[in-house]
Amino acid sequence: MLINCVAYEDGRKLADIPIDDIEEWVARPRCFVWVALRDATDDELRQLRHEFDLHELAIEDARHGHQRPKIEEYGDTLFVVMKLREARSDGLEMGEVAIFVGANFVLSVRNHSAHGFLGVRERCEREPEHLKQGSGFVLYALMDSVIDRYFPLIDAMDSDLEEIEGAIFDRGAARWNIQRLYALKRRATVLRHAVAPLLEVTGKLHGGRVPAVCAHSQEFFRDIEDHLARINTAVDAIRDTIATAIQVNLSMVTIEESETTKRLAAWAAIFAISTALAGIWGMNFEHMPELKWAWGYPMALNAIGGAAGFLFWRFKRAGWL
Amino acid sequence: MLINCVAYEDGRKLADIPIDDIEEWVARPRCFVWVALRDATDDELRQLRHEFDLHELAIEDARHGHQRPKIEEYGDTLFVVMKLREARSDGLEMGEVAIFVGANFVLSVRNHSAHGFLGVRERCEREPEHLKQGSGFVLYALMDSVIDRYFPLIDAMDSDLEEIEGAIFDRGAARWNIQRLYALKRRATVLRHAVAPLLEVTGKLHGGRVPAVCAHSQEFFRDIEDHLARINTAVDAIRDTIATAIQVNLSMVTIEESETTKRLAAWAAIFAISTALAGIWGMNFEHMPELKWAWGYPMALNAIGGAAGFLFWRFKRAGWL
Amino acid sequence: MLINCVAYEDGRKLADIPIDDIEEWVARPRCFVWVALRDATDDELRQLRHEFDLHELAIEDARHGHQRPKIEEYGDTLFVVMKLREARSDGLEMGEVAIFVGANFVLSVRNHSAHGFLGVRERCEREPEHLKQGSGFVLYALMDSVIDRYFPLIDAMDSDLEEIEGAIFDRGAARWNIQRLYALKRRATVLRHAVAPLLEVTGKLHGGRVPAVCAHSQEFFRDIEDHLARINTAVDAIRDTIATAIQVNLSMVTIEESETTKRLAAWAAIFAISTALAGIWGMNFEHMPELKWAWGYPMALNAIGGAAGFLFWRFKRAGWL
Amino acid sequence: MLINCVAYEDGRKLADIPIDDIEEWVARPRCFVWVALRDATDDELRQLRHEFDLHELAIEDARHGHQRPKIEEYGDTLFVVMKLREARSDGLEMGEVAIFVGANFVLSVRNHSAHGFLGVRERCEREPEHLKQGSGFVLYALMDSVIDRYFPLIDAMDSDLEEIEGAIFDRGAARWNIQRLYALKRRATVLRHAVAPLLEVTGKLHGGRVPAVCAHSQEFFRDIEDHLARINTAVDAIRDTIATAIQVNLSMVTIEESETTKRLAAWAAIFAISTALAGIWGMNFEHMPELKWAWGYPMALNAIGGAAGFLFWRFKRAGWL
Amino acid sequence: MLINCVAYEDGRKLADIPIDDIEEWVARPRCFVWVALRDATDDELRQLRHEFDLHELAIEDARHGHQRPKIEEYGDTLFVVMKLREARSDGLEMGEVAIFVGANFVLSVRNHSAHGFLGVRERCEREPEHLKQGSGFVLYALMDSVIDRYFPLIDAMDSDLEEIEGAIFDRGAARWNIQRLYALKRRATVLRHAVAPLLEVTGKLHGGRVPAVCAHSQEFFRDIEDHLARINTAVDAIRDTIATAIQVNLSMVTIEESETTKRLAAWAAIFAISTALAGIWGMNFEHMPELKWAWGYPMALNAIGGAAGFLFWRFKRAGWL
Repeated sequence: MLINCVAYEDGRKLADIPIDDIEEWVARPRCFVWVALRDATDDELRQLRHEFDLHELAIEDARHGHQRPKIEEYGDTLFVVMKLREARSDGLEMGEVAIFVGANFVLSVRNHSAHGFLGVRERCEREPEHLKQGSGFVLYALMDSVIDRYFPLIDAMDSDLEEIEGAIFDRGAARWNIQRLYALKRRATVLRHAVAPLLEVTGKLHGGRVPAVCAHSQEFFRDIEDHLARINTAVDAIRDTIATAIQVNLSMVTIEESETTKRLAAWAAIFAISTALAGIWGMNFEHMPELKWAWGYPMALNAIGGAAGFLFWRFKRAGWL
Repeated sequence: MLINCVAYEDGRKLADIPIDDIEEWVARPRCFVWVALRDATDDELRQLRHEFDLHELAIEDARHGHQRPKIEEYGDTLFVVMKLREARSDGLEMGEVAIFVGANFVLSVRNHSAHGFLGVRERCEREPEHLKQGSGFVLYALMDSVIDRYFPLIDAMDSDLEEIEGAIFDRGAARWNIQRLYALKRRATVLRHAVAPLLEVTGKLHGGRVPAVCAHSQEFFRDIEDHLARINTAVDAIRDTIATAIQVNLSMVTIEESETTKRLAAWAAIFAISTALAGIWGMNFEHMPELKWAWGYPMALNAIGGAAGFLFWRFKRAGWL
Repeated sequence: MLINCVAYEDGRKLADIPIDDIEEWVARPRCFVWVALRDATDDELRQLRHEFDLHELAIEDARHGHQRPKIEEYGDTLFVVMKLREARSDGLEMGEVAIFVGANFVLSVRNHSAHGFLGVRERCEREPEHLKQGSGFVLYALMDSVIDRYFPLIDAMDSDLEEIEGAIFDRGAARWNIQRLYALKRRATVLRHAVAPLLEVTGKLHGGRVPAVCAHSQEFFRDIEDHLARINTAVDAIRDTIATAIQVNLSMVTIEESETTKRLAAWAAIFAISTALAGIWGMNFEHMPELKWAWGYPMALNAIGGAAGFLFWRFKRAGWL
Repeated sequence: MLINCVAYEDGRKLADIPIDDIEEWVARPRCFVWVALRDATDDELRQLRHEFDLHELAIEDARHGHQRPKIEEYGDTLFVVMKLREARSDGLEMGEVAIFVGANFVLSVRNHSAHGFLGVRERCEREPEHLKQGSGFVLYALMDSVIDRYFPLIDAMDSDLEEIEGAIFDRGAARWNIQRLYALKRRATVLRHAVAPLLEVTGKLHGGRVPAVCAHSQEFFRDIEDHLARINTAVDAIRDTIATAIQVNLSMVTIEESETTKRLAAWAAIFAISTALAGIWGMNFEHMPELKWAWGYPMALNAIGGAAGFLFWRFKRAGWL
Repeated sequence: MLINCVAYEDGRKLADIPIDDIEEWVARPRCFVWVALRDATDDELRQLRHEFDLHELAIEDARHGHQRPKIEEYGDTLFVVMKLREARSDGLEMGEVAIFVGANFVLSVRNHSAHGFLGVRERCEREPEHLKQGSGFVLYALMDSVIDRYFPLIDAMDSDLEEIEGAIFDRGAARWNIQRLYALKRRATVLRHAVAPLLEVTGKLHGGRVPAVCAHSQEFFRDIEDHLARINTAVDAIRDTIATAIQVNLSMVTIEESETTKRLAAWAAIFAISTALAGIWGMNFEHMPELKWAWGYPMALNAIGGAAGFLFWRFKRAGWL
């Protein structure tokens, strides 16, 4: 579905144009066309492939989605695939955007995602001094907008992690903690796969030899790389902390069990000594003089109570109870 | 066993030719010969080694199989070894294919595998505009076909993993989970050894200096590398998740055991207090006034029941029962 | 808030100057201006951006803070971001400083930190033979001062770790140890994120092609890198030791539990044999000759005591008690 | 001890020569001398050092043994150290071979190993078309022969691992498994130290700038590297699997213990309820009407049996028994 | 404290000279001065800094000690810092040596170490053919001597590890093992920090562009690197084995505990069945016919003994006892 198709010149919007007229606008020097598609049909892609002379393999990738993030050059055209990741009420959004950038065009194809890039277009049109840089700046603005949406995910994971950490030394919270740590690990993995491959290749867009379309916006692309590196570091830190937390959690369970075992041992001993003593005085020997004493029974109760009390005091002192 | 041997010119099939005529066809400019063998005999290899002037070490590798995946240059000839991996009803297929590519020939030698490349040949012949690129494109088509068969394995592992993850927090499923995780780990390892060494060397086929036969198909080989990178990332993610899952599973077992220990402790205490009390009133002292009371017995039963009930309530509240 | 703004020439202080006069001082050859801001307002940054012709992206980073440490070149201007980390009574200081360095100016913008750089300025003014090197040396002096504050953190962590290690083989200290190890791990992670990204890029400031402003102070920047490498190694060693310590701690808990289980088993057996023997002589059979013996009861007590004593001796010998 | 000393020309053996004549043979163009020593004495090494003008440091290494595998150039002479590893009835052979290769000589010094290289010499003499390449091919043949002996070790470890894996989920096999896994890990480490350092440096013998003596045998040395890479990958896979297997084994022990604990809990409860009930009817109250009933005893037995049976059924259903 | 200060020419010792005369000797071509200091005072360092024109940052490092090992070039002067590590009766020696090497001087500053380098000087003077290479060879000799002292530490750790490994599968040795493994890990870490940073930079002293003073001794410095690599590999192997041993040790504890639990369960069951049976015959029902039988008591004892014996046999067979 076509979202919009606009021609720009010198950083200013010229006109909304129909797809069929693209060819003539693209031919004008200093002019570039910015087309946005959403869940594009094969027909749309075929037409635009023709208009912008795109490579069939890139078109394949844009159509099928589920690519890994990447930046590829096909001749003078740059092909960028990014993952759209955003927290939604029903879980993590798993969309994707493919961007084709040539000297005089930008084509973005968004898949499986409700969140559009209209804000990016508006911001670009409000900053003609930047938009003047041409299609390279549009690529930057699109990438920046995608990456900016990763930060809230990091924040959410950080605060989840903090919450779990607050409970990690609580007794009895182990099962709950471990379930949440596992779920967090999965989310961190998803985000890492959106960021890490991109970080590896973003270096191509600034510094040494860069694609022609990016030449005038290098400092912006370095900023992109810096943001990606920040997210990547944050994700790695989260993953590392999760690994430690799982290990610590296991330790806590073992420690708790150890304490339970000690307490069990202590009470078992207290009851067992009482039972053993009572058993002795329950034997049926004829000649057990204390059985006949007037104070035999209270004495026995005292002996039992005393033995139990003594053990209780010992265990208490040893920290088992 | 010879599967087929065909000569092509300008992307079009010229003729099925006998092996003995290869020499004259290979001599024609713009023409190339595509030979497919299966579980080749020493004689066949000897003959073709002579026809195409192949290196003895490469022939050794093609004959013996069980090589690691690799891409090697012998003069102008490219030698590629790939693992054939496919899910079968009786486990994972463990075949191998060796491909020799020169300016005017392609020779594929398939070992221990039922699955052929006829589909590849058909697809190539249907796309003369690509086949025109020569033997390099055939290499791409063969590699692409091998790698495409890896994706269903990834999907199968992913869905297995999801199933195990669904059961990982279930009580009593630990033994079953750990067995399946271990089996999954092994499968992931097998696939990784098919993919990782290839990924390391695919970069040689596009980008900087590339072998002459690949020069015109570089973007296709970059696509190959991209697919391999995708599979490799997926396998790494699966391995990483398995490692965490094994650890989490161990935690769950420990947590469960801890809960069992607590429950055991609780019931043991309840029975032990009953036994201890009964033991006391079972002592044979002569002067135990309560034994003579009319309501002594019910009182004793109430005392025992009360003590047991009190403990039950305490343990219930503490979450041990 | 402006801290101060001073012009220097040939390593000597010329004058405190108002911000508005910067332009004319900057124009004088061999002269440079050193401006220090703290929690700068947007207005201040806007004005200085104009005076020194700074890049908007760098200004963004300086304003927002929470960047990762980095060193970036914008044309002839160097932009450095560092984390200010210092132990305070109320935890770890989490400030940040952004430094812009051009041929004839240094601008430092400090955020969220009470600790200033007045000492650095004083030291520089006391060493005119070094300050003569120009703005590059000021950058060195600032960086050196920031990094010097990391060392006490390392020392604190080392001594904490030593303390924990002293307790790691103590019985009953497991819970406490694991909590402290976890807290230590977190602190080490915070410090690592302040150091590691900086270490990666410091190599740009000495050795091969270096930014013009650093050219005369290369050996000083190599010293910076050396200090960072030392801290990084120390942090890695701490993290590694923590990981081992957590594992060892878990082992100790398991060993302790194992010992508790054995002791429990031993006492349980001793009481159980006493109870069983007493139970036998408490049976109500009519024909139990020993019940009638005059020495029956002492004999029974001896038998019970003997059995218990025998077990006690066996368990003692086996190291269970 | 001198094994043999032979001169070759154009791939054909000329004569067995005495060590003292080496000098004159070495002086003949297109001729090279191949000397094999075993557990060489200092005198032999001193003489040959003089004949071939070898570097003192290399001679030191050859004399002392216990070097790490390496490939070093001393001027035009190549110095190679390799580990001889072979399964023997009394454990792993731990020998070493040092090889010096110059334009017109090959000197191999074997230490602490019963297994010689006569087979290599014979094979070389049977292939004059290869031996014509000169001393470089002899180096290849020796290296190939050493590395070929590593493969059976890999196979043995693989089959050991398979055997352990077959027992890893068996009850009660944990102690045995862990001992064997640990022993296997050690063997894998020994083999890795023989292979990994060599793999790092073999790249120097083919591809870019290579030592003169290897120039004509580059494809053979690439084959060496390929074999080393294969062994290295196999060892890494074994080590990785061992790590997982140890972890899984620990999980299995914990699971088994958990099951034992449950069973123990169940039987303890069944006996405890019987004892508690019997204890109650063993109390000495005067007014316990059921004690006088004719059917009191059978009723009590039924009650005890019923309670025990009920618990047995509950535990059975819960999978504890 | 000055140890000695000697001038050399063409590999031969000329004279012991006072520090004040250094300047004139250094001025003579083909002559170099070798100065050795121990725990140098600030005055000594200031004077020698002046004589040899050393960089202030290097002097700082030499004075303060506690540097990481490193090799730095300051103009034509090479600055090397190495850790002195040696086993002493009272633990590990933790000294340090800083070495300055110029075309015509060598200055070594040793800190916190009793072990000197007189042996190195003697060995050098005995080998004038090597010492002729100049100050570079002295640097090699010093480095070699420092590194040679690392090997006995490796051997000691290896034999400690072997001893622990011998006890790792012993019952009851777990606590002792884990303490020793932890201590060993710490020692390995200390040694690794002495070796690894040095290994990273030793490559600068041979091969491509090397500092002028090392140019004639490159093969010797490659030997240094080789030794460092050997130690590094050995330390890594030790660390790896320790990690596995800790894990295996934990497994053994768990296995042992599991066995203890089983044994406990078994004996508990045997006593519990005896107590339960005795309890039944201890009930006070009037109509318990067996109580009146002449053979009732022996029968009861038999029943109890039989039940206990049956359980004993069952548990024995199941391997629990």
